[in-house]
Amino acid sequence: MSEPTQTIEGWYALHDFRTIDWHAWKAASEEIRADALRELTAYTEKYRADDQNRTGGFGVYTIAGHKADLLFVHFRSTVSDLMDSETEFDKTSFATFTKKPYSYLSIVELSSYLSKPDIAPEDDPQLLPRLRPQLSEMMPHICFYPMNKRRSGNDNWFMLSMEERVQLMRSHGMIGRKYAGRVTQIITGSAGLDDWEWGVTLYANDPLEFKKLVYEMRFDEVSARYGEFGVFYVGHVVNDQELVDFLQL
Amino acid sequence: MSEPTQTIEGWYALHDFRTIDWHAWKAASEEIRADALRELTAYTEKYRADDQNRTGGFGVYTIAGHKADLLFVHFRSTVSDLMDSETEFDKTSFATFTKKPYSYLSIVELSSYLSKPDIAPEDDPQLLPRLRPQLSEMMPHICFYPMNKRRSGNDNWFMLSMEERVQLMRSHGMIGRKYAGRVTQIITGSAGLDDWEWGVTLYANDPLEFKKLVYEMRFDEVSARYGEFGVFYVGHVVNDQELVDFLQL
Amino acid sequence: MSEPTQTIEGWYALHDFRTIDWHAWKAASEEIRADALRELTAYTEKYRADDQNRTGGFGVYTIAGHKADLLFVHFRSTVSDLMDSETEFDKTSFATFTKKPYSYLSIVELSSYLSKPDIAPEDDPQLLPRLRPQLSEMMPHICFYPMNKRRSGNDNWFMLSMEERVQLMRSHGMIGRKYAGRVTQIITGSAGLDDWEWGVTLYANDPLEFKKLVYEMRFDEVSARYGEFGVFYVGHVVNDQELVDFLQL
Amino acid sequence: MSEPTQTIEGWYALHDFRTIDWHAWKAASEEIRADALRELTAYTEKYRADDQNRTGGFGVYTIAGHKADLLFVHFRSTVSDLMDSETEFDKTSFATFTKKPYSYLSIVELSSYLSKPDIAPEDDPQLLPRLRPQLSEMMPHICFYPMNKRRSGNDNWFMLSMEERVQLMRSHGMIGRKYAGRVTQIITGSAGLDDWEWGVTLYANDPLEFKKLVYEMRFDEVSARYGEFGVFYVGHVVNDQELVDFLQL
Amino acid sequence: MSEPTQTIEGWYALHDFRTIDWHAWKAASEEIRADALRELTAYTEKYRADDQNRTGGFGVYTIAGHKADLLFVHFRSTVSDLMDSETEFDKTSFATFTKKPYSYLSIVELSSYLSKPDIAPEDDPQLLPRLRPQLSEMMPHICFYPMNKRRSGNDNWFMLSMEERVQLMRSHGMIGRKYAGRVTQIITGSAGLDDWEWGVTLYANDPLEFKKLVYEMRFDEVSARYGEFGVFYVGHVVNDQELVDFLQL
Repeated sequence: MSEPTQTIEGWYALHDFRTIDWHAWKAASEEIRADALRELTAYTEKYRADDQNRTGGFGVYTIAGHKADLLFVHFRSTVSDLMDSETEFDKTSFATFTKKPYSYLSIVELSSYLSKPDIAPEDDPQLLPRLRPQLSEMMPHICFYPMNKRRSGNDNWFMLSMEERVQLMRSHGMIGRKYAGRVTQIITGSAGLDDWEWGVTLYANDPLEFKKLVYEMRFDEVSARYGEFGVFYVGHVVNDQELVDFLQL
Repeated sequence: MSEPTQTIEGWYALHDFRTIDWHAWKAASEEIRADALRELTAYTEKYRADDQNRTGGFGVYTIAGHKADLLFVHFRSTVSDLMDSETEFDKTSFATFTKKPYSYLSIVELSSYLSKPDIAPEDDPQLLPRLRPQLSEMMPHICFYPMNKRRSGNDNWFMLSMEERVQLMRSHGMIGRKYAGRVTQIITGSAGLDDWEWGVTLYANDPLEFKKLVYEMRFDEVSARYGEFGVFYVGHVVNDQELVDFLQL
Repeated sequence: MSEPTQTIEGWYALHDFRTIDWHAWKAASEEIRADALRELTAYTEKYRADDQNRTGGFGVYTIAGHKADLLFVHFRSTVSDLMDSETEFDKTSFATFTKKPYSYLSIVELSSYLSKPDIAPEDDPQLLPRLRPQLSEMMPHICFYPMNKRRSGNDNWFMLSMEERVQLMRSHGMIGRKYAGRVTQIITGSAGLDDWEWGVTLYANDPLEFKKLVYEMRFDEVSARYGEFGVFYVGHVVNDQELVDFLQL
Repeated sequence: MSEPTQTIEGWYALHDFRTIDWHAWKAASEEIRADALRELTAYTEKYRADDQNRTGGFGVYTIAGHKADLLFVHFRSTVSDLMDSETEFDKTSFATFTKKPYSYLSIVELSSYLSKPDIAPEDDPQLLPRLRPQLSEMMPHICFYPMNKRRSGNDNWFMLSMEERVQLMRSHGMIGRKYAGRVTQIITGSAGLDDWEWGVTLYANDPLEFKKLVYEMRFDEVSARYGEFGVFYVGHVVNDQELVDFLQL
Repeated sequence: MSEPTQTIEGWYALHDFRTIDWHAWKAASEEIRADALRELTAYTEKYRADDQNRTGGFGVYTIAGHKADLLFVHFRSTVSDLMDSETEFDKTSFATFTKKPYSYLSIVELSSYLSKPDIAPEDDPQLLPRLRPQLSEMMPHICFYPMNKRRSGNDNWFMLSMEERVQLMRSHGMIGRKYAGRVTQIITGSAGLDDWEWGVTLYANDPLEFKKLVYEMRFDEVSARYGEFGVFYVGHVVNDQELVDFLQL
C-alpha cells in the first residue's frame, strides 16, 4: 500500500446549485414575487452576516448557461449546519420557483506539510483563512468543477509512491503559483462525501484566467495522465441588489 | 476458474431514497400536511418497533444535497418483506409528496472465515448482530455507496487466485480496523440483486471519518487497482420528532 | 473471421416494465380505480390463458425498488404479436396510471449442439419447453438483466476461436448445472433486436440463489473477462388477486 | 495520415422517432382525436406520394418497447427539406400527443468503387435506387441503429491503411451478401451531421434475420474489433389504415 | 511537463440552444403568440444590430432533430455580457414556450504563431475578423460540436512534446485548408469554462461539406488517435421573417 497524503481539514462546503423556473416566476403575481424576494434576501442576508463575522463562509453567484442559474456556496463547521442551510432555503417561498440540478458536499483540505510543527493549524494566522475561507473577499468570477485522480492501467495515481506524488504535485503547484493574485483556489476533499474525490473552486477578476490556468495545467503530468474532470460551472458573484435585479421581470 | 470467496448471508436490505416535492408540500393545506405526517410517523413507528425488537432493522435519515432528501433503510429476512415495506410507504398520503430517485437491494454478507466451525452463524452471539444489524444503535451520520470490483485488462479482481484476494483483503481490512469504534461498516452483497456487486453503509459520529476512511483505503491496492464506486449519499439519522421538524414549514 | 455459435430460436420475448404513478392512482375516484382494475385483470386473464394453453408465455411480477413496479413478461411467436400486447396494454385505462421505464425485446435462444440430428427442435419434447417456456410453472422469484460479451483489447470474446469459446462455455455451464432445480434460466438473444446481445431471465424460490449464482459465475473466466452487465431487476410473481391487493389503497 | 474511403452520397435521411402520450390521447375528446388523425394522415399521404413519385423516400413504422412508438423515415435531397418535414409534423394537432425521444440525421453513402468510371452515379440505373431509396418497396420489418468505428488503443479503424480496411470490409460484405433478398440494408453516413459516424437501416420480412445478420457480423473482425453500437430500434411498417387502427382506442 | 500551445483569445461565445414547447405554443391564444413574437424579434433585432456594427457577433439558427429547435449564437467581449443576453432572453414572454436543452460557453482561440511580432492582434486586420467573427456574413448552414484531446494510455495528447503536436496539427490544418471557401471554422477554447476543451462551429453552403470535412479529418492522426467528440448539432440560419415563419402555426 502506498502512503496516503496527509491532509488538514477546515470547514465543510456545500455548493448548492439552483435552476429558476422562469415560466412559474412570470406566471406569479407581483405580490407573490415580492414576498418571494423578501424571503430570498432574508436568507442571503443572514448568511452574508455569517461570512462577515467569519462564523461561516457564504456567497451567491449567477451561473452561465443551461446547467444552473444560481449557486449558493456555504462553508460551515458541520455537515448538519450545511444540511440545515439547504433545507431552510427549500422552505422559502422563493424556492418554489427553483429546482436543484446539482450540489456538491466536500470539506476544505490542505496538505499537511503546510502546517507548522509547533502550532495548531487553527492558531496559525496564515492557514486559518485558507481553512475557513471568507467568500465576500474573493474576486467576482467563480469556476467550480469536481475531479478525480485516475486509477486506470498504468495511469494509477493511488499506486504511485508518496515520493512520486510529492514530486508531481510540486510541478503542478508551480503553475498555480504563477497565477497567484489572479486566481484564488479552494480545494475541497470529497472522498466518502460526494461522487468525486475533490472539488475545485476558483475565483478570478477575469474568467479568461480560468481557461489559461486549467489549460496550462492540462499539460502537466498530474492532469495530463491522472486528472479526470466532471462538469464545469462558471459565473459571477451577486450582491442582494444584483440578485433582485437578476430576478426583476 | 478462480475459487469464489465463501460468504455468510444475513438480512436483506433495501435502501429506499426519497426526494421531497417541496412545491406540492407547501401548496397543501395544513390539514392535509398534518394527515400526511400522521401516516408518515405511523409508518416509521411500526418499523422502529421492529428494530427495537430485533425482528428487523430500520432507520430514517435526512440526506445532504440534491440527490435525495430522505433515506429509509430497511433490513428484513425476505425480499418480499422489503417490497411490502416499500409499497406500504408508497400508499401513504405522505408519499404523494415524494419521488423515488434511487434505491438499492442487497443482502448482508460476511466472509465465511469469520464463522466458527462448530456453531451455526445465527447461534454465534458475535456474528448475529453483524448479520442482523440493529440500526437504532448506530452512530448518527450515515454514508452509503455501491461498488464493484474491477474486471478491466490487467486489473481483474475475479481472475485473481483466492490466495491473492485473501492477502489483498487482509491489508484492506487492517485499515478498517484502525477506524474501529469510529466507523461502523455494513457490507451487503448485491450481485444478482442490484446493479453493483456490493453496497457499503457506514456510520460515524463525525462525517469526517467517512472521508478519512474512504480516502485512506483508496491508496490500498484493493481500492486503487480494483475498486469502482457509484454515487455517494451522506446524511444523518432523525427520530420522529426531528423528522416532523424537518418537514415543518 | 471466427465461426459464430450456432443457435436454435424459440419464441420472441418482450419484458415490459411499468412504474405506477401512485399520486394519480390515489387521486382517482374509487370508481375509476375499479374500472382500471377490471381492465387490467381482463388483460392479464387473457394472456394467462395463453400461457396455460401453451399458445404463448406470460407472467406478471412486482419489482423491488425505484426502477419499476410491475413487469409483464410476454413470450409470443412473432414480434408483431408482442407489439400488439404492448399496445393493448397502453390502451387500457389502467395504463393511464403507469409509465414505461424500460422494456426488452429478445428471442429464446439455445445452442444448436443441444438439438438432435434426426428430429426438428419443435418436435423434440425435451427442447420444446425450453424454446417456448410456460411461465406459470416457474418458481416465484424473478431476476432479469441484459448482458454483452466484451470486445475490449485482449478481452474480445468475438475474436476467440470456436474451440476456445466452447471450452469456456463448458465450465460456465457447469456452474449453472450446480443450481439445477434451484434456478431456472431462460437465455434470450437480442443482437439486432435490442441494445445488448442477450437477456437473462432467472427464476428461483429464494432470491438468494440469484446472488449465489451470479456471484459464483463472476469468478468464471466467461464472466470475469468477457461479461458486461446492464441493470438488474428483481421481483416476484403475482396472480390476479395479489395484483389487485398490490394496487389496493 | 491514412487515406479516407471514397464515398458517393445520395439523399439525406431523417429518422424521426415519436412517443405517444397515451394519457393525453385518451383524455382528448373523440372529435379532437378525429381531427388529429385527419391531420396525421394528410401528412403521411403527402409524403407517401413523394415516395411513390420517387421525389423523396418516406415510411411510417410502429416501434417495439419503451424507446418510441412511431418512426417516420424521411429521405430528401436537402437538409432543409428534412427540417421542414419535421417542423410540419410538429405543427400538426396530432403532434400535440407526441414527444420526440430520438432522431437521426444522416446521408445515404455508397463506397465509390461501386461507381462506373464513365457514368455519373445519378445516371447509373443500378446505383440510383440505392442512393435514393423508395421505402414503400421495402420489406415490412425495420431495424435502425447508429454506429462508430472504434478508435481505441490498438483497435483504431482510422489508423489502418486503406488496404487493410478494404480487405476487412470485403469479408464483412460477404456476410451481408449471404443475406441478399432476406435483408435490405441502407447505410447512411453521419460524421459531422449527428452523434455517430453511421446509421444502419435494415429491412426484412422476418425480424429474426436482423438478429442472425447482426450476430454473425459480430464475429467478423470489422465488428468484433472495430464496431461500436448505439441504441437498436425495431418495428414494422404501417399503412394509413394500420396507423389509424394503431391509434384507435 | 510538456509546453502548452500559446493562444490568442478573442470574443467569448455562448451557444444557447432552445427547444420549443409546441404543445404550449399551440395552446396559447393568437394574441399571446403575437406578443411573444414581438418580444422575440425585438430581442433578435437588437443583437443583429450589434453584429452589423461589429460590437458583438450574433446569429439565429433552426436545428434539425430532437436535440434542439433554435440556436442563438452570441459573441461578446465579456462573460457577463453573455450571461445578460441569456437572462434577457429568459425574461421574454417567448421564452415561456421554450426549454434549455444545452448551452456552451467558450472563447475564440487562435494559435499564437498566427500573430505578427510587431503588431497587436487586435490591430492586425487579418486576425481581427477571426477573433471577433461577424456571423451575419457566414454561410447559411451551421454545425456545432464540442471536443477534447484524448488522454488515454498511449494516446495522450497532453503528454506529447510541443514539436510532435505542431507537426500533427500541421497535417490536420492542411485538410482544413482544402475546404477553404467551402467551410468556415471558428475554434473556441473552453478549458475551465465548460465541460469540453474546445467548441467547433462550422459554416457551409452545403451541409455535405460538414460530413466530408469531419470524415476526412477522422483519418488524420490528430482526430484518429486523439479526438473525442461530443454531440453534433446541425441547422441553418434564419432571418427574422424566416424565424416568424418557422413559428407560424
